[in-house]
This record gives sequence, C-alpha cells and structure tokens, in this order.
Amino acid sequence: MIDYRNLRIAVLGGGNVGANVVDLLARHREELEARVGAGLEVVGVAVRDTGATRSPEIPAALLTTDAESLVTGADIVVELIGGLEPARSLILAALRAGADVITANKALLATHGEELFEAAAQVGAQLHYEAAVAAAIPIIRPLRESLAGDRVRRILGIVNGSTNFILDKMDQEGWSTEEAMRVARELGYLEADPTLDVEGYDAAQKAAILASLAFHTRVPVEAVHREGITGITGADVAAAKAAGYVVKLLAIAERVEGEDGAEGLVARVHPALVPREHPLAAVHGGNNAVFVEAEFAGPLMFYGAGAGGVQTASAVLGDIVSAARRHLAGGPGVAESTSGGMPILPLDDVATRYQIVLEVADMPGVLSQVAGLIAEHGVSIEQALQSTARGEAADPTATLVVVTHRAREAALAATVAALNGSPAVRRVASVIRVEGL
Amino acid sequence: MIDYRNLRIAVLGGGNVGANVVDLLARHREELEARVGAGLEVVGVAVRDTGATRSPEIPAALLTTDAESLVTGADIVVELIGGLEPARSLILAALRAGADVITANKALLATHGEELFEAAAQVGAQLHYEAAVAAAIPIIRPLRESLAGDRVRRILGIVNGSTNFILDKMDQEGWSTEEAMRVARELGYLEADPTLDVEGYDAAQKAAILASLAFHTRVPVEAVHREGITGITGADVAAAKAAGYVVKLLAIAERVEGEDGAEGLVARVHPALVPREHPLAAVHGGNNAVFVEAEFAGPLMFYGAGAGGVQTASAVLGDIVSAARRHLAGGPGVAESTSGGMPILPLDDVATRYQIVLEVADMPGVLSQVAGLIAEHGVSIEQALQSTARGEAADPTATLVVVTHRAREAALAATVAALNGSPAVRRVASVIRVEGL
Repeated sequence: MIDYRNLRIAVLGGGNVGANVVDLLARHREELEARVGAGLEVVGVAVRDTGATRSPEIPAALLTTDAESLVTGADIVVELIGGLEPARSLILAALRAGADVITANKALLATHGEELFEAAAQVGAQLHYEAAVAAAIPIIRPLRESLAGDRVRRILGIVNGSTNFILDKMDQEGWSTEEAMRVARELGYLEADPTLDVEGYDAAQKAAILASLAFHTRVPVEAVHREGITGITGADVAAAKAAGYVVKLLAIAERVEGEDGAEGLVARVHPALVPREHPLAAVHGGNNAVFVEAEFAGPLMFYGAGAGGVQTASAVLGDIVSAARRHLAGGPGVAESTSGGMPILPLDDVATRYQIVLEVADMPGVLSQVAGLIAEHGVSIEQALQSTARGEAADPTATLVVVTHRAREAALAATVAALNGSPAVRRVASVIRVEGL
Repeated sequence: MIDYRNLRIAVLGGGNVGANVVDLLARHREELEARVGAGLEVVGVAVRDTGATRSPEIPAALLTTDAESLVTGADIVVELIGGLEPARSLILAALRAGADVITANKALLATHGEELFEAAAQVGAQLHYEAAVAAAIPIIRPLRESLAGDRVRRILGIVNGSTNFILDKMDQEGWSTEEAMRVARELGYLEADPTLDVEGYDAAQKAAILASLAFHTRVPVEAVHREGITGITGADVAAAKAAGYVVKLLAIAERVEGEDGAEGLVARVHPALVPREHPLAAVHGGNNAVFVEAEFAGPLMFYGAGAGGVQTASAVLGDIVSAARRHLAGGPGVAESTSGGMPILPLDDVATRYQIVLEVADMPGVLSQVAGLIAEHGVSIEQALQSTARGEAADPTATLVVVTHRAREAALAATVAALNGSPAVRRVASVIRVEGL
C-alpha cells in the first residue's frame, strides 16, 4: 500500500499515444510511483467516442466524453487530442485550475504557445512538451536546461519521419517519388492526406518550437519559411548522390546578421543537400535527429525514433514524472524564457549555397553567358558541370549543374529569376539549397 | 541596472574549466541574467596558487585561497577542483549552508555519491553534475528526467575521449598503439600518467554515474568491472576492421537476469567490437557518444565533444542556470532517485560474444579439437576462420579466429582457460568481446 500523496492524472485523448500512456502507466505504476514518491492515479480518459476500438485497450470505467469536468480537480492533465480546439481551451482551464499540463500538441504550441506559456506562468504551473518534437528523443530539456547557459548558433533537424522515409528510400533504393509515397502510405508513415507532412507544415511547427527554445524568443509558426518535398524528383536525388550529397527535409533555425548588421534569427523548412559524411546523412527511414551547433558546447546530435505510439508515450511518461515532482515540490514551474527577444528576419537575410540544375542550349558561349548572368548578381560559382548534349541534332540541349558559393538568399533568388528569363536557358530544372555543414 | 535578486556564485578551482566558466559568465552575464531573471555574480574563485598563470585570465580581485570561507554565504557553489578531498568536504559544507551545488567531479560522485546526494536531499538543495559525464553532451538530464518514465535496458557509452582518439587513429590510420599514444600525449589528450584513461578508470567512474541514473540504483565505482585498452594491439584493430568491426572502449550498464532468475544490473568497461555500420562506430577522434536502449523510447543516441575547457564550461553554465532557477523557485530540489534498488550482479551473469584469436599448430584435426573444447563448455561457434600456415615448415603455426555465439561470461571465461591449457593451442593471442548491437 502506498501511504504517500496521490496525484490525479487526467488524460485527454484515447488515440494511439493516449492508449499507450494509460497502458504503460498501469503496467509500470508501482515502479514510477516509487521514482516520484507519490501515487500516480489515472482518474479518467476523455474521448469523443467511448465505444471505439483502441489498441492497447483502455478500461471502460476510465472513459468519459466530458473533458471539461475531467480537467477540474486533476493534478496533472495530459493533452493528447491534437488540433487547436478544444485542446487550447482545455489546457487553459487545466492551468487555471492549478494543474501541471503535458502536451504533445506541436500545432497548438506553434500557434498559441505564447498564450499557453503566459497562462502557466501566471499560476506558477508548468507546461511540459517533450513529446511535441521528435517524439522519444530528449530535445526539449537539453535545449531548455542543459544548453541554457550556452549560445545556440544553429539547429538543423530531421524532425519529420514520413518525409525522411520517402527521401531515404529514393536515395537508398532508387525509388521514384510516387513509389516511395505509395509505400510510406502503406506502412502508415503517411496519412490519407499527406499534405501536413510532405508540404513541410509538420516540420515547420517543430521548427517554430525549437527556434523559440534555442533563441529564447517566441517564434510563431507563421514566421517559419516553409517548402515541402513535392518538388524533389528522383533525378534530383540521384544527382545529389552522384555529387556526394543526400537530400533531406531540414528544419533549420539560426542566428543571422540582418541587412542593418543587427543580429536576428531565421527559421526555415526546406529540402537541402547534406554531405554524405555528415551524421545527419546517416539518419535513415522514419528516424529523427536534431543537430545543434552551440558556441561553447560545439556540435551536438540527438538521435532516435521520431514517431510511434509507445515511443511518444515514453516522452509523455517522462513529462508526467517531471510534472509530478514539480507538483510535489510546490514551487512555481520554470517559466518559458523569452529573454532573447531576437528579431525574426526574412529568409532573404540567410546566406546559403544553391545547386541549380539548368537545361541550356548546347552551343558555344552558353556557359559563359550563364556564368556572366550569375556574376552580375554578385554570386560566385563554386562548381559547374555540363553534361553531354541530347535532343534533336539541330537544336541540342545540355544539362548544366551549377553549385554557387555562399550568398544571401535574396541575391540567389534574383539570380534564379534572371536565369529563368535568359534566352540561353531552356528551363531551370531544379534549385536546392546546399546546407553548409 | 538589474533590480532583481542577486545570486552569489562561488567557484572552487581555477583550472581550465573554472577559468572558462568565469570568463564566459562575465562575457555573457547580461544574457544569462535575463534568462534566469536574477543577478549572477561570481563572488570569488578559490585556487591553490593565486599567482599562477591561467587561460583565460581570472581577475585577481576574485582569487582567494580560502575556499572554506568562500562557500559560506554563496547561493551557488561550483566545484571544479577534482579529486576526493577537499572537494567532498567543501560540497558538504556548501549544501549544509543552503547552497545549490554544481560539480564536474566524476571521481567524487562515483565514490561518495550516496553521501553527497543524501546531504543535498536533507536540506532540499540540489546537486547538479551535467559536466561529470561526456562534458558538453546533455546526458544527465535526459536520463534523470526525459527517460524517467521509461525503463532503460542498456547504455553503451564512448565516454573517454583520449582512448577513443587512440583507438580511432589505430583504426583509421593504421597506427600502432605506441604511435597513437605518443600523438595523443602531444595533443594533450593524455596526461603525463595516462593510467586513468588507458586503464579505464575514468570510464568506470562515468559508467557508475550513468548506471546509477539509468537504473535508479546507487552503483559505486568499485562495482564496475574494468578493463583498459593497453592489451589491444594493432593486429587486433586490423583483424576487427577486416571482419567489419571497430574496437571501442565502451562503458556499458545493462539489465541482466541473474543465475536465480531475478533481475539485476551489471556495469562494465572494456574494449569491445562494434559493427562498423552502428552509429557508435562513427564516433571519431576525441568525441563522445552515449547510446541508450530504452524499453519504450527504443534506441537513442547523444553525441558531441567529450572534453575541452569551453565545452565542459557549457555544461556547467547550464547547471548554473538550472541551480539559479531552483534557488529562486525555492521549493526543494529533485532528490536523486534510488527507488530501483536493483542488485548489482557480477560480470559472470552477462551474456556476450567473444572474438578469440588463437595461434594453433597447423595440423589436421586441430580445428575439430578446438571446436570440441569450446562445445564442451556449452558455447557455440558462430564463425571460425583459419589463416594460412606460417613459421617453420617442420612445426607450422596457423592463426584461428573464432567468434562465439552469445553465452554467459562465466562459460566464456572457462572456455578461454581451457583453450589456454590445450596442447593444440600454442597461444591465445587475444580475446575481445563482441557487443550485440
């Protein structure tokens, strides 16, 4: 018998993660209670349909459709409903009722983070969200606490398992985009509507959360520049491979110098070429990894499973233990630090490299014309590779692959626009950033 | 001007890490104070010799030889002296005086951890030690908090940069042990007396700390089985490479089933063969990495710099921010969890694989004799490879490389002893464990 204080846990949502949290808590309750030094009692699980089939099963006695009543009187509320509403209102109600709150809801944090963190600070409660980015990989606490005395320069994350699976299969097996997407859907990596993943919306939400933490600055998801992977072809992946690169969808947040010389931050999600010898290139399948460049600590990498009900439940359970300890200690929770207050700068202020694949007329002087056009925009060429001509003998076409040196996005974008308008260029076949690593 | 509360920080030790902590704190004071919401004032640095040259320099006004007085009245004490005494007494005095304490002292934690954690718990202060294992890599908080709701099955860490540098150079450049050690010493990876590193003492201290955290059980350093890398030859590394492995000095802590069927833990440090495609094999030079296998989270890896004054200072600064927040919040610190209370089992209870290199008489029937001897001990052979004969024609010697299947250490040790006594075996040239990964 436990003779210490009993903490009441309310779970909102009985989906895959919620069902696993309830199941693992029940199976390891004694062990976790001993770690916390308090009882951990799940008092109810709020669901939309109490009759639905769940795996693992949730005891019927715990199920309720009345989430509002459930959050009142709970010590710890675990929000796993997803979406903006009613998740937002329920979390606010829980915080105001004095509960510590755990959420895995990246969309909500990336959209209404400011409101939620302020509500938590007002009542001295804490909002825990280790599961919101990269599932089981501990990345929130390391950024929030371990690196709290450091200055993060840049974060590069593979934070969407579905798109990493697709790009990895295209790279490793030579599959086409369509084939890789079909298999990803069959294996459950993609939803029926894959837009959130393949267009980078999911990664952008995570980028907003990582950027906020790393730079102690509230970064809303609308401030994240976002490009998905739907424009990436098998030819792009093969060309990258031949050049010693692999295409990855990266969530990047970094310190940059704005046009006025003042420091700011840019957050962006887009496909990028990563050198094959870099640790991020070795992240295969549905796995996730977050690479952090800190001024004092140097490069760090955090690697693991980026999805899965049990894996995500691991992060939620860790947060439950933290919330329970905080609740027992009684002091106020750690307020979200926004002391950085850095300006969020436009993509134009980032300096990067581009790989530009051009289809050009195969005649004398074309390379020089293209090179001249690029130089006019203040961009210099690191490497240019012209393939053998093909097409009709009377009007042959060649492929020209140009890799630029580091230049500001604004100059690179203007360069690409000019190339598109040049009579020497038939088509700009692809433009992919080459991340400096 | 800062109009909020001022926290007084005492630093014990003005070596490389201490000097960097003081320097970084001074240069980024405003930024860190804003994150914490309080003043962070270094009130003094206790050193043995106030006249010594330091890099970076410490303002003379801060230096004192009176450590005892310095710890009294400080809110946060940072112990970077190293060694057991006076570090232990000063930390105890600081805790009793109500300070939160930060230490990077792995030897002290691995030896007197129990006493120090109890002293902290008694006064509600907290002992922070992120820098004690793997320098800048956040591994203490992830184990202590993020994975607090999970069940760790096994940890495998490359936690000693010096020996990793040596083994990596032997593997990548084909250097001899002597050559690699000489360069390691020249580059400052090894002390004048390299025993602590090459004999695995440093790694064993870190193994004790990681095992204690992962299994919620106090594991003293004496309970860690320890073997160094001095027995590893260039031939061993080359043979491993040919077979698709790399030799790494690993700190391993894992759950095992004891002879009576009850669960316990074993902590061990020894050279081991790691498959080349495993992430741990890609940890080069002086870097560190900790690979964690958790029941729910699955495999996780934490990678980064394992040494260096600035890198270690990053971890200490993170702890200063945490300690400051805890101090301001006022509630009791999180007590070290020892609720696991797992029995610590002997190495004999571990099941592993061995690669055994034998010099045998090159005559018919030898392989069958060796195989028979191994089978007699209940061990089965996964792979056997006999090289061409060499030596005198009248008495030729062959090299036989045997890789066993997984068996208990006790059976493997008995097998090796029997091989040593067999007339068919001229010499057991090397025995290295092959870690199941």
